[in-house]
Amino acid sequence: MAWTGPFTKSGKSALVAEGPWSYAMDAIAAHIICERDLLESAVPEGVKPTEDVYMYFADIVSSSPTFPELNYEAPGLVQYRELAFFVKVEFRGENYAYCPFMYVDNDVSLVRGYVAGFPKKMAVIDITRRHPMLKVEKVGGVAMRAGYRIAKLIVKPERDAESNPLDNFGKWLLYRISKPMGVAEFVEIVPEVQYGRIEKGEAKIEIGGGINDELEVFSVKEVVSGVHFSALLRIGSIRKL
Amino acid sequence: MAWTGPFTKSGKSALVAEGPWSYAMDAIAAHIICERDLLESAVPEGVKPTEDVYMYFADIVSSSPTFPELNYEAPGLVQYRELAFFVKVEFRGENYAYCPFMYVDNDVSLVRGYVAGFPKKMAVIDITRRHPMLKVEKVGGVAMRAGYRIAKLIVKPERDAESNPLDNFGKWLLYRISKPMGVAEFVEIVPEVQYGRIEKGEAKIEIGGGINDELEVFSVKEVVSGVHFSALLRIGSIRKL
Amino acid sequence: MAWTGPFTKSGKSALVAEGPWSYAMDAIAAHIICERDLLESAVPEGVKPTEDVYMYFADIVSSSPTFPELNYEAPGLVQYRELAFFVKVEFRGENYAYCPFMYVDNDVSLVRGYVAGFPKKMAVIDITRRHPMLKVEKVGGVAMRAGYRIAKLIVKPERDAESNPLDNFGKWLLYRISKPMGVAEFVEIVPEVQYGRIEKGEAKIEIGGGINDELEVFSVKEVVSGVHFSALLRIGSIRKL
Amino acid sequence: MAWTGPFTKSGKSALVAEGPWSYAMDAIAAHIICERDLLESAVPEGVKPTEDVYMYFADIVSSSPTFPELNYEAPGLVQYRELAFFVKVEFRGENYAYCPFMYVDNDVSLVRGYVAGFPKKMAVIDITRRHPMLKVEKVGGVAMRAGYRIAKLIVKPERDAESNPLDNFGKWLLYRISKPMGVAEFVEIVPEVQYGRIEKGEAKIEIGGGINDELEVFSVKEVVSGVHFSALLRIGSIRKL
Repeated sequence: MAWTGPFTKSGKSALVAEGPWSYAMDAIAAHIICERDLLESAVPEGVKPTEDVYMYFADIVSSSPTFPELNYEAPGLVQYRELAFFVKVEFRGENYAYCPFMYVDNDVSLVRGYVAGFPKKMAVIDITRRHPMLKVEKVGGVAMRAGYRIAKLIVKPERDAESNPLDNFGKWLLYRISKPMGVAEFVEIVPEVQYGRIEKGEAKIEIGGGINDELEVFSVKEVVSGVHFSALLRIGSIRKL
Repeated sequence: MAWTGPFTKSGKSALVAEGPWSYAMDAIAAHIICERDLLESAVPEGVKPTEDVYMYFADIVSSSPTFPELNYEAPGLVQYRELAFFVKVEFRGENYAYCPFMYVDNDVSLVRGYVAGFPKKMAVIDITRRHPMLKVEKVGGVAMRAGYRIAKLIVKPERDAESNPLDNFGKWLLYRISKPMGVAEFVEIVPEVQYGRIEKGEAKIEIGGGINDELEVFSVKEVVSGVHFSALLRIGSIRKL
Repeated sequence: MAWTGPFTKSGKSALVAEGPWSYAMDAIAAHIICERDLLESAVPEGVKPTEDVYMYFADIVSSSPTFPELNYEAPGLVQYRELAFFVKVEFRGENYAYCPFMYVDNDVSLVRGYVAGFPKKMAVIDITRRHPMLKVEKVGGVAMRAGYRIAKLIVKPERDAESNPLDNFGKWLLYRISKPMGVAEFVEIVPEVQYGRIEKGEAKIEIGGGINDELEVFSVKEVVSGVHFSALLRIGSIRKL
Repeated sequence: MAWTGPFTKSGKSALVAEGPWSYAMDAIAAHIICERDLLESAVPEGVKPTEDVYMYFADIVSSSPTFPELNYEAPGLVQYRELAFFVKVEFRGENYAYCPFMYVDNDVSLVRGYVAGFPKKMAVIDITRRHPMLKVEKVGGVAMRAGYRIAKLIVKPERDAESNPLDNFGKWLLYRISKPMGVAEFVEIVPEVQYGRIEKGEAKIEIGGGINDELEVFSVKEVVSGVHFSALLRIGSIRKL
């Protein structure tokens, strides 16, 4: 019943309960074009970045059939907010969506991601929640950490859309590092996404960073589109490359 | 443009921007019967408690037409979670819903409430968020503060309902205290509530408390009903009694 | 036993217990010279700023003899971090230290300050803690709020000093605003400070701000000195002007 | 320069910078005797608990010579609070201090511990900070998570002491689990501790727990002593058993 410690014989005290986990989310995203050369410093040897970058802020409810009680007995453990960046790259002759930076505000998500290879850190993340009884013209996300801005994204949903730009980047590629455990390896994830509504529109982006977050690798040349969508994500497969 | 400091000539730096504020919410609530005698110690002189108590956990998006940009430029400032208790009381010959304890997780809400007379404190509050793509059988709220549990409420929505039990308690009565400002007075609020869906069902409640939160005044004798609802709240009128 | 709500007959549930409060602190501070004209927009009518500004980050333990148990039963309620700005001003023919912006990370402090007239807001604040068994060459403070940086200050303590520059600014002047309570008035505070060690040295400052924090009023022309000190503060007197 | 992701070529964006890390701390601790049988459910096969348990709340400043700037540029990343439990056990013929539960309030610490095998989770932790200018008779620590109390410990320092009871438990034993990485193994750590002042006195303990924290395994039969100490900890050696 447990993917991680703390170990107990029942398995009920584990930080990350066993999956498979589902992730229901409302997300604010953007497809942007960045300086290719700067992206080089954020990818490992053998990974060739293109200039296509996708970023999203997501408000997420996760759930596992092995411990569904958490969703109402301790909802703070399985709900969280996330900011992620994906770079379209070439690796061993294939296109991938490589994730160099990911921020969450919840420890279950942090470690659940860490063991898969997601480069998660904690940040304070706020995301506009749309309520059916309150009109908002725009939606936004902001994240901060260590005293500085991480990123800000504002999207004005203007029209329904058929697809999410991230889906053209390829399967997901992660670089899992845990030096004290002797681990430094590539991981491939095939996501399974089922979309609710997808809307597109104008986006406004500010990317920050600081001493422990070299986000200056994202120098935005062009904003292709802003996206607002809801989706249900499952991990189709995960394997070490 | 400002209800409070910090003062600047533009008014844009105020902790609480001028209203009128609207509050769109999803709430998990319960109507409970408590020991009447214990409630006495949580109300001021002149206020006579009945044994009817209403508690709710609410996930709230607030918005003011004087500063709507906050909802997407800095969404964390106007979104928050709240736990409140209301006791049906008699005061000067009328029935009121008197609020002895209220918890939030946001400073704008804390001070916006404080100046009206709401007895707000900060707590860490988590509430089940229902996502259309993820089924949950039950919804729950938990709150903690100062190292101890404040309260926990789990509701199983079973049937649509017409009304919310709080609406039978009367107008809202607050006791506004700010000793260093020489203030100790009663305030009457007439809320204007527009409901979305209201559901009722079984509720399970645990009330905690500790050295700075005398929640032992709520000794639950009976749970009348659990409620799950969405609503849009505005303050119809507010006056000093 | 209570300065504020929540009201209970015992007084033990109040957010702010009755004082007099003492504040033991370790602080990182700087005396800076700013553009005088810009400061105009952060002070009320009748207050004339000079170009002298003092800012500090402080790690504070507060305590009241009316409720000393809080310091070990619920230490998180009485310990907090604070960032404040003071501008040397002229008001009705006297010099004052006027406080236009103040940030804390604790609700007791927020409301205890609010009722006196301190323009407090919540921020995430981190401050170097010096431990006797770990050498550090520099000490720093950072604060962030609403997705953006508020301020950062790094001081390299180089020599012992006799005095703290703030003490030459005058008594403290606050502008207490609570529009829904009909309050907009000046407050004068005479602080009583007892110093531990005071050190001075180089300081490095970055001031941020954003949509709800007009900190661009602080345009730093010169850093006079950085300060690192410990002190015990009490409020000598407080009166409405 | 990095023990974990996020990977960048400079190594500066890693959540956990390379060590060796030092930990300067002020701690409130207790040596307690618990029901041996209940402890069985919190240890893996092959580990035999005794009835001796040690718990501590610690306020910690960590530092690594590979990235000392963090201590003043971003102090929140390297300072944190921790609550840990150690059980004296027998394992393969030797005595060990086995750690079944550990809580922190910082992500760097969480993952730095996780990769070593410490069973860390996030909690909200508050600990009395003693300030030289403010007398306190007792010191306390409280921790809460997921809506419930984790633990509370109050110690009244009464006399100087020579040693810390934990040091008689043996080397540290951890059970490192990361099922998605195929890891489930024992780890032995030899701590190197240099003490500042050690004081002993009466202790008062409350242990909580809830759906994700089976702390009912700690049924306190006797409090042997409370401890208040400062120390500098380094990891002497770490090896997989």
